[in-house]
Parts: sequence; structure tokens; C-alpha cells
Amino acid sequence: MSKLNVTQKLIKEHLLKGEMKPGKEIGIKIDQALLQDATGTLVQLELEAMGLKKAQTEVAVQYVDHNLLQTDFKNADDHLFLHSAAQRFGLWYSRPGNGVSHPVHMQRFGKPGKTMVGSDSHTPAAGSLGMLAIGTGGLDVAAAIAGQPYFVKMPEVMGVKVTGKLPDWVSAKDVILEMLRRYDVKGGVGKVIEYYGDGLKNLSAMDRHVIANMGAELGATTTVFPSDEETKKFLKSQEREEDWVELVADEGCEYDYHDEIVLDDLIPLIALPTSPGNVVPVREVEGKEISQVVIGSSANPGLRDFWIAGAIVEGKAVNNDVSFDINPTSRQMIQNMIDNRAFANLIKAGARFHQSGCMGCIGMGQAPASGTISLRTMPRNFPDRSGTKDDQVHLCSPETAAASALTGKITDPRDLEKLYDMKYPKFEHPEVEIINREMLVAPPEDGTGIELQKGPNIKSLPYIEPMQEKYCVPVMLKMGDNISTDEILKAGAEVLPFRSNLPEISKYSYTVIDESFYDRAMEAKNTHGGHIVVAKDNYAQGSSREHAAIAPKYLGQVAVIANSYARIAWQNLVNFGILPLEFIDIEDYEKIEQGDLVYFRNLREDVKNRNNIKVIVKNDNGKKEEFETKHSMSDRQIDVLLKGGIINEFKDRLEEEDLKA
Amino acid sequence: MSKLNVTQKLIKEHLLKGEMKPGKEIGIKIDQALLQDATGTLVQLELEAMGLKKAQTEVAVQYVDHNLLQTDFKNADDHLFLHSAAQRFGLWYSRPGNGVSHPVHMQRFGKPGKTMVGSDSHTPAAGSLGMLAIGTGGLDVAAAIAGQPYFVKMPEVMGVKVTGKLPDWVSAKDVILEMLRRYDVKGGVGKVIEYYGDGLKNLSAMDRHVIANMGAELGATTTVFPSDEETKKFLKSQEREEDWVELVADEGCEYDYHDEIVLDDLIPLIALPTSPGNVVPVREVEGKEISQVVIGSSANPGLRDFWIAGAIVEGKAVNNDVSFDINPTSRQMIQNMIDNRAFANLIKAGARFHQSGCMGCIGMGQAPASGTISLRTMPRNFPDRSGTKDDQVHLCSPETAAASALTGKITDPRDLEKLYDMKYPKFEHPEVEIINREMLVAPPEDGTGIELQKGPNIKSLPYIEPMQEKYCVPVMLKMGDNISTDEILKAGAEVLPFRSNLPEISKYSYTVIDESFYDRAMEAKNTHGGHIVVAKDNYAQGSSREHAAIAPKYLGQVAVIANSYARIAWQNLVNFGILPLEFIDIEDYEKIEQGDLVYFRNLREDVKNRNNIKVIVKNDNGKKEEFETKHSMSDRQIDVLLKGGIINEFKDRLEEEDLKA
Repeated sequence: MSKLNVTQKLIKEHLLKGEMKPGKEIGIKIDQALLQDATGTLVQLELEAMGLKKAQTEVAVQYVDHNLLQTDFKNADDHLFLHSAAQRFGLWYSRPGNGVSHPVHMQRFGKPGKTMVGSDSHTPAAGSLGMLAIGTGGLDVAAAIAGQPYFVKMPEVMGVKVTGKLPDWVSAKDVILEMLRRYDVKGGVGKVIEYYGDGLKNLSAMDRHVIANMGAELGATTTVFPSDEETKKFLKSQEREEDWVELVADEGCEYDYHDEIVLDDLIPLIALPTSPGNVVPVREVEGKEISQVVIGSSANPGLRDFWIAGAIVEGKAVNNDVSFDINPTSRQMIQNMIDNRAFANLIKAGARFHQSGCMGCIGMGQAPASGTISLRTMPRNFPDRSGTKDDQVHLCSPETAAASALTGKITDPRDLEKLYDMKYPKFEHPEVEIINREMLVAPPEDGTGIELQKGPNIKSLPYIEPMQEKYCVPVMLKMGDNISTDEILKAGAEVLPFRSNLPEISKYSYTVIDESFYDRAMEAKNTHGGHIVVAKDNYAQGSSREHAAIAPKYLGQVAVIANSYARIAWQNLVNFGILPLEFIDIEDYEKIEQGDLVYFRNLREDVKNRNNIKVIVKNDNGKKEEFETKHSMSDRQIDVLLKGGIINEFKDRLEEEDLKA
Repeated sequence: MSKLNVTQKLIKEHLLKGEMKPGKEIGIKIDQALLQDATGTLVQLELEAMGLKKAQTEVAVQYVDHNLLQTDFKNADDHLFLHSAAQRFGLWYSRPGNGVSHPVHMQRFGKPGKTMVGSDSHTPAAGSLGMLAIGTGGLDVAAAIAGQPYFVKMPEVMGVKVTGKLPDWVSAKDVILEMLRRYDVKGGVGKVIEYYGDGLKNLSAMDRHVIANMGAELGATTTVFPSDEETKKFLKSQEREEDWVELVADEGCEYDYHDEIVLDDLIPLIALPTSPGNVVPVREVEGKEISQVVIGSSANPGLRDFWIAGAIVEGKAVNNDVSFDINPTSRQMIQNMIDNRAFANLIKAGARFHQSGCMGCIGMGQAPASGTISLRTMPRNFPDRSGTKDDQVHLCSPETAAASALTGKITDPRDLEKLYDMKYPKFEHPEVEIINREMLVAPPEDGTGIELQKGPNIKSLPYIEPMQEKYCVPVMLKMGDNISTDEILKAGAEVLPFRSNLPEISKYSYTVIDESFYDRAMEAKNTHGGHIVVAKDNYAQGSSREHAAIAPKYLGQVAVIANSYARIAWQNLVNFGILPLEFIDIEDYEKIEQGDLVYFRNLREDVKNRNNIKVIVKNDNGKKEEFETKHSMSDRQIDVLLKGGIINEFKDRLEEEDLKA
């Protein structure tokens, strides 16, 4: 590998542990971290529990863009907490309403050649600037902020050669929709998508953001663009030219997979309900009546995207039956939209302007009317995500969205030429944008004295005990195959408000399976110091939410014994100090029942030395059984587990340092 | 009364029934009607039930400004329904996000000399243009739209003489806060407040809107201003000079009460939690830390109000701990704010701009953080109205709000002179504003063929039976004193979403008192054709919500027997066809119990002839009691009741007309 592609260069430059062989675990140095508010409250509580003094990354930013509606005290309380935590732990704080994390980060902080982790699945958008940016769980982000490497399997790289130039009325959104048409929502799993080629000079950095952002919908680990003249031009427009470095693939480098996009051949595309991978030409569905158009989100956040919509509706009014919703990316974007008349054009034509943030993209408002079609420039249209059951959300470019807003029907924007005698408006990006930094609060030099502001619904994470040598704990539940994280800790409107309140959210643990779980587990914690659960294959499949590990841990879960585990959940168990044991002989599943007492002896010793782990099972009726189990943890993970999880591991290290000092 | 004040002139010009003697019922012709969406869905369903062909008022407008957040399908479905209903019944439709009803109505439709009813308590804002504008229940508005007179007790008029000129840093909000300081929230009950005098030439029409709007907080029937040169100037700025007529009080006219405001003497005032009447000088509370400032609402909707806030923060940034929320009044306002740089100034300084509408003023978002102070230019700060329990909402002028946003503390805006070396910015209103009519949909000439668009949660009002001659119905509940409408039909997040779904909302009838009510009442409706309830004094006190009458009626409520009734609820009962009987001898209360069967004979006859109404009570155990009751309805009300309520009365009339045609 002497000739490297951009992805490989980024990894090589940051490699701390492991080998760059696809599929092998590597540990890489993380330069930047991105947090949003929906996941960020837990990350900040984790930083608190770790006892972090100051963020070790070059830049870490806490954005507030998800929970903006403030229909009761919780979101406003979260904002105060996040602000105080950002100050305390040395993060920048992007205040509520300042803008959507990904484009704001790109404008104000993104740097070619850097790595980033973010607790948001669209973090890969920063790949538009020649960064390696990966979306991951909150604890991984907390660990990175605390200076730890990020561990991931070395990905394969798909090189996509881009040639030519986009036709009129076709834009970057159609490029990524074309990729989704080809690969669907799982085609990118385990891969980094790297774009290269001559055609890139015709895609601005913000166009690339559109493509990198929605690369998440391909299932890709991330998307990477080179850093070139377009990148430089972008950084200059943000008064940050000095942050530019060139980063391009070596001539003759190799990719694990190959594809090609000829920009000239693309046409307006649209993703039908209810998957971003369900892509067809707009022509195939044109003429259907619509009730809503939404322009904005991190999947079309650029000044160009709003400007083109404004230029299309200029001097006209949108159809009377269409709610024309505009979600401006950021306050800086609004200022530039005022400047280039996009704002006035859109308002005049009938737009409903919303505050800067994610809004309807994550189902925070803007739910469409029952049984009606909504056209959105957003990245996702999963069922019910809009807030309306049986919704009919379609995903498309700003051109298609604006054209359809005028006609009230799904419209191929190329038809505007004859419908309105319109030429494709050509956007000139200002050499330097109006810059707005007023709602970005810098971290203080030393934040150690700053108190965390916790409203009544925000609770510090409780102390977690390290693993002990001996246990005698009851089996709290015996479950079957394919238990999902939704069954372990359900989501939804009843539970989510307690995302920053572990004692409260823990009450919902396993309630889907057994309403009495919480009471019984608390009893077992008080009398036996914990409990275990038993399951069969594929334990904790589904959503990767960390609460499905941290909540059972809070209730005293020492171990799970299962036949096999879902990958991410397995990592989460280790990260939060729950021992994931595997049956050696699945027949042993029959030897253990709910209510039995389980004895572990020499547990630390056995885990550490990779001995089989003996499980002794007894009950009140004189039953006594014995069988052996094993674990598949790496040395690093063993260390983490014995200490009670990543939070404790970091806390230990910090205490050691303090003692030495 | 040969010399008349403006209020008397307006009433005289529109008098259809009754005498202009304070306290006597009068019926007046209504020229205009204003509906907002929260109350408007029921009004439109009432128009449907009435079988209305076309609105009979000169102008009726359905605004959508309350329920804009669309966190599920219901609000979006309501918008489609309201749009279709406006077209069907001949109302203008102001689309969601177009703006707040009161200022938009003033700009686009308000006319000096006209009368208006509105299903919103701040309807009196139109008094700023020399209109007689009254906020009232939905059915009254429906009746007015159907061409019926509006019945109200002839009010007394308080004349407030205004002299002088406002000092720097003091504005119209301080005028109405001064009135609230003097009279508190009940001082205006039963009165019209009429302003006159030399000082009015120094208050623009939009300043008068501020004062008239928040006159509702004095408890006044309405507020009236003359129509003068300032009114003309305003209408000219809206390209509607032709709608101006002069309307001033006769020289030497009389008022029932007198007061005087010397503008020069006013200082910045603020209403403390949790009442708009809790007013003190800003100086008394200055220095307290705040977490939020909200500028906007119908109580400070003017271009000047936003401009002055923008001018105060121009070139500065708001305090890092203050959420600076701006609710632009309307899309027209946004266009003018772009034009006069207010928008850019506010955004640059850190504003969160929200869509045009009521937003936090009615608790739709913008809830402040727990235990923190929020400063708002809104009209109300009742407990919890913001959405946060134990909130600390203060009401003040845009000047006070903007000054405090800069410092992060409650700040007397006069201090800006020394704090920022600032002179009081002087606003020049443009001679003609940028006008925006794009989201106002005109009614068609003939809407009779238009279908009402009803989502799954919108149900037509069911057929209501006229009163019968004989009943034998069970006593469903026996209650005590002071039963509130909250106990009859509770409000809140669980119930309100069913505001357009009578069968569903009826399930919550009396649940606060008895969970089994709905099931028992439906059973009684099916087996006996209805039920009655019994109470003591002050039945149905509290909120005036009509659902507390229409829902029990839907469940078959024939009559209430009580010792006395709250005034508005008593009218509502009659309007929806429930007979409000009164004990003649309160001892008879002991003769009737829950579960008894009640017999009415000759009921229609006795009601009509004002005979005492005999109540025969029996039960399964052989009990038989008899006593007499009475009613206090007017002839008009008797007619309404016998027909089963106002909806049936109107329907009858329409059917008669159709038969004649």
C-alpha cells in the first residue's frame, strides 16, 4: 500500500493501534468531536461521571438543533445543562437555533485532513471537506473527547469516479439519490465511499456535503471527498482559508470496489415512501397531488439550495393547497439569504419560515396531513418518522421541491422551462459569506469550577461498581431468541423525555417482557448486589441505543448469558460493565431458570485469563447444576469490563494521574 | 343621549334589538367575524350542522395561528379542514404561518365604523381602528356568520382621556400596563374602555392595537379608539386609504366612568408573575437574571415593536445566557423587517426567529427553563401558561425586553443611554408598507359544492333532537356547589386533541367526578333517551368552553337542575339545547338522588308559558317525590331551547326558506 487513497491517508495519519487490514480492529486518534442535543445530554453526563477535566480533542462542539420546540420545561432545561456542561468540559456550545450541526460544523470548524466522531448518524457530512468523520454511540464520543482512540474495524473503500457536469435542473441531491438507486440502504455497509475524478471540480464543497451527508443512508461507515480547490474556495468563503490543506489520492492508488457517476447523465430523482433507497425518476410519479413541501435539513443545507428554491418561486405564489415550509440551516444562512434576496423571494411566495434546526427532519413538528404527500429535501423517509402514521414522505432536490410547490403536484423541474418560461437560474456563491459567530460560545481556558445546571429531570450518572470476584445473584429473566433493544428499553414519547435521567428511565427496563422487572431487580440489587439475565441467540438486536445497557447496569445487571449477541449491543454491554457470557453447550440453557441463584467464583481472575467461566446454579428446591461459559472480549475490552466499564476505566486513569501529580 | 361617544355611535348604528340602557340585552348587527384555528374547527362544524350556504357577514376570516407545531397529523389535518370549510362557507382563509389573526385582520380587513365578533379573547384589538370588536364563544360567532344579531348586555363606557406624549424608552405597552396597574384584571368587567383626547395623535394605530388588545386583560367587554388622522395614515400604509371614515366622539358626550392618562408621566412597567395585573415599575425588579426574552404576539405586533428591538441590539450580541426568541407577526411583517434591516439586526445579534403565529403566547413551544425568568411582550402570564410549571413569566415592552436581552438581567431601557451610550432610536413608519396577500385565500363566489376535508380525527356534529314534551330519564349525577367546567369536561393535552371530534371528546365528560359517567350516560341515552344532572350553587363556573355543554348534550343531557348557574355556562346550556332548571325551594335538593328516575310532562308547554316545571321523582324502592322548578330564559332563549339549540334554530329557518323558494 505505498499508493494510498484519501481514506487510507486519513487513517494512516491517525493510526494508533492495529493494522490497516480490512475487517481488523484499528484504533485511531480523533481530532474533533460533534455532539447534538438529543444524544449529547447522556454524553455530557458520561463526561461528568468520568471526571473529565477538559476535552482532549482539538475541537469538540455541543450543538443544539434537535429538541427546539420547548413544549414543556425539559428541552429548555437541557439547553441550560448542555451550555454549562460545554463550559465545564471545554467544548464549544452552539446555542439553540444557531443551526444544524453538520453544516455549521463544516462552516466554522471542519478541517481537511482531520478525523471526527459524532453522536449523530449524519456526522459523515464532514467528509465533504476531506475529513474522516464517523457517526457513533455517545460513549465512543465521550471517550474520544477524553482523549481515547476510536476503535473501529478497518473498512473497505469503494472508489466512485465522478466525471462530467450536472445538467440544468439537476443537483447534488440527485447524485446521492442515484447512488441510493444503485445500492439501496445496505449497499454501503462496512465500506467508506470515496469520490474522486475530474467531475468533482463541478461539485462545490456544499454539494459534496449533500452527497456525504446522505451517504449515511447507504449504510456506509462514512463518505470521503478529497480536499482540493473547491474545498479551498469554500473555506475562503468562510474566512478560514488558512485551514485549508490539500489532500488528494495518490496517482494509481487502489480501491476495494469501483463505480462511476457521469454527472451529465443524471436526471431528477425522487425517493418514494418509505425508504431513501426507493428511488425512481421524478417523471415516473409526476402529477400526484401534494400537501407539503419542506426545504432544508442537513441533506440540503447550502445557500445555493435555498437560493435556487427562492429563484424558482420568485414573483409567483405557491399553490394554495401546499404548505411551503423552509427550515433555514443556520442564522448565518439566514443573513446570507437576506443578502441574496432568497429569503424575501421565498416569504413573498408563501413560505413558512421556521427556526434554524432539524425540525421536521427528525419529526419535531411539520407532520403532514393524513394520507397526503409531503416532498422534502431531507435525508430520510422511514415510516412514521414525520410524526404522521402512514405518511407519504418523498425525498428530492430543492429544484424538484420548489417546482412542485408551485404546481401543487409532483413536478419534474425541467418542466419549469415550458410551464413558466423559465431558464435554469445560475447561482453565484459570494466569494466571502456574511459570517455569524454570535451564538457560538467558546469554552473557557479553565472550566473546572463551573457548576453543571441540572433541572429537575437531569440526574448525574450513578457510581458504577467494578466487577467483583464473587457473586451470588438471582436470574431475573430467562428469554428466547432475538430479544431487541426495544424490548430491553423501549423508546417512544413516554420514555424519551427521561433520556437525561437514568434512575427514571431505568424503570422502563424490560417492561415490554415483564412489568415487574424493575421492582424485582431493585430488590435483588439491595439484597444480593445484582442479578443476571439469560437469553438465546442474537440478544439485544435492533437499535444501538446505549440506554439498553446502562439502564440494566444501573439496576445491578452483572452478566448476561446468551447463545449469541448482536454486534453493537455486545460492545455496549462491555462498555457499560456488563459481562456478556456465551453458552459453550447450548443444552445448558435448560439448566438455568428464572428465580434460580447463580454463583460466580474467581470471576475477575477467570475473565482476565480467558478461562472458561463456571456457573453454579441452585434453587430453593435443592436443585444444583453446573456448566461452563466463555467470553469473546479483546484484551482492551477485558480491561474495560473489569473496571466496570469505560467510564470507570477513564476515571481510574484520571485518579492515577492525579496521585502522581 | 343626543351627544354620543364612539362606543355609543357604533352600537346605535348597528342596533337591531333592545334598548341602549346599560345592563339590558341588546342585539347588534355584526359586519365582520374573526376565527382562529383552536376555536374555529368547532365553529366550522357548527356552520356545517346549521346547513349554512354562505357567510352573511361583510367579511369573515378563518385564521390559522394557534396550532402550528404539527407534532402529529392532527394540526395538519385541521388546516386542510379549515381551508375547505372556509371555501365551503364563504370565509377568507389565512393560511398557516401567514400571521397572527389580530394584526393581520387590522392590516387587511379592519374598517372604522364596523362591528366584529371573534372566537378569540383578544378580538378587541380591532378597536384600534374605531371598530366595536368583541371576543365571544364559537357558537355566537357561528350565529353572526349566519347573519344573526349578536346579543350582549349594553355595556357602560369608561372614557380615558389621553394627553401629552410618551417619553423616550416608553411605549404603548407601558400605557396598557399602567391601566392594569390601576384597575387589575377585573377592573374592566362589564365596561367598554374608550380612549380619547389630544394625546392620541401621538399614538399610532398600531400603538392603539397594543392597548386595545391587552384591554382584554382588564376584563373589559372591549376597547374602542376613534378613527382619526392616525387611522387614516395606517390604512394608507396598507394601501387601503379608501376604507377610512372618520369616527370621533361628539363634543360634550358623556361617559359612565372617567380616567386620564398623561403620557409624559409614564415610565417602563412590568407585570410580574403570575398575573397581567401584577404591575410594578421595571426599576423595582431590575437586576434579576433572566433566561429568555420573547418579542412578538398580538400584544406587540407592530413593525415599530420589532424595529426598536432590532435597533437596540444592532451591532451587539445578546447575553450568552438568554434565549432571544422573535415571533414575527406575519409574513408581511417579515418582508418589511427585511426591508428596514430589523430582521438582519436581530438575527445578527443572536435571535431565534420562529414562524409567524402565536407560538409561546399560547404555550405552543418556547417554554422557559425551570425556575428561570422569561421576559415577554405578550399579553398574559397566568401560571403554567408557558408550558413550564412554576414559570416566572414577566410582561413588558419591546424596549425593556431588548435591553434585558443584552444585559442578561431585567433592565430599565432608559439605562441603555449610559450602558451603551445609546440615544432612543426614532422609528419612521414607511408611508406604504410592503404588502403581502399571497397566503390569504379568497372565498369563491359559490362554495356550496365544495367538500369538507375531514381527517380521521374530525367528525361532523351529530343531529341534535329538539326538546320533547315528555321525558322519563335517570339522574346521572348529583353534585354540590361550584362545579367547574374543568370538572364537566377537562382540558389538557389528553383531551384537547379531540376538539374537532365530539363523539371522542364526549368520553371525557364528568370523568373528573365519576369515571363511569360516559358508559352510564350512553346506556341511559339508549334506554331512556337521555339523562339529567343535579347540582347546587354556581354550576359550571370557570372557563367558558362550549364543549362543556355540547358534550353532555351529545350524551343525551335533557336538563340540569341546580340552585344557580355561572353566567356564560348558563347561556351555553341554552345555546346547545340543555334546559337549565332552578330549584324554587333548595330543600327539594334532598328529594332527588343519583339513580332516581325523573318524569317531565308537558315540558315544552310549560317552558314556553313560563309555568313552573313539575319534577316527579321515583325510584325502584317505591319512592315518589314531587317538586317544582323554574327557568330564567328570555323569549328568544326559550325559542332556541325548544328547537334543541341555536344550531337547530338556524337549520329550521333555512329549511323554511328553502321550502318557500
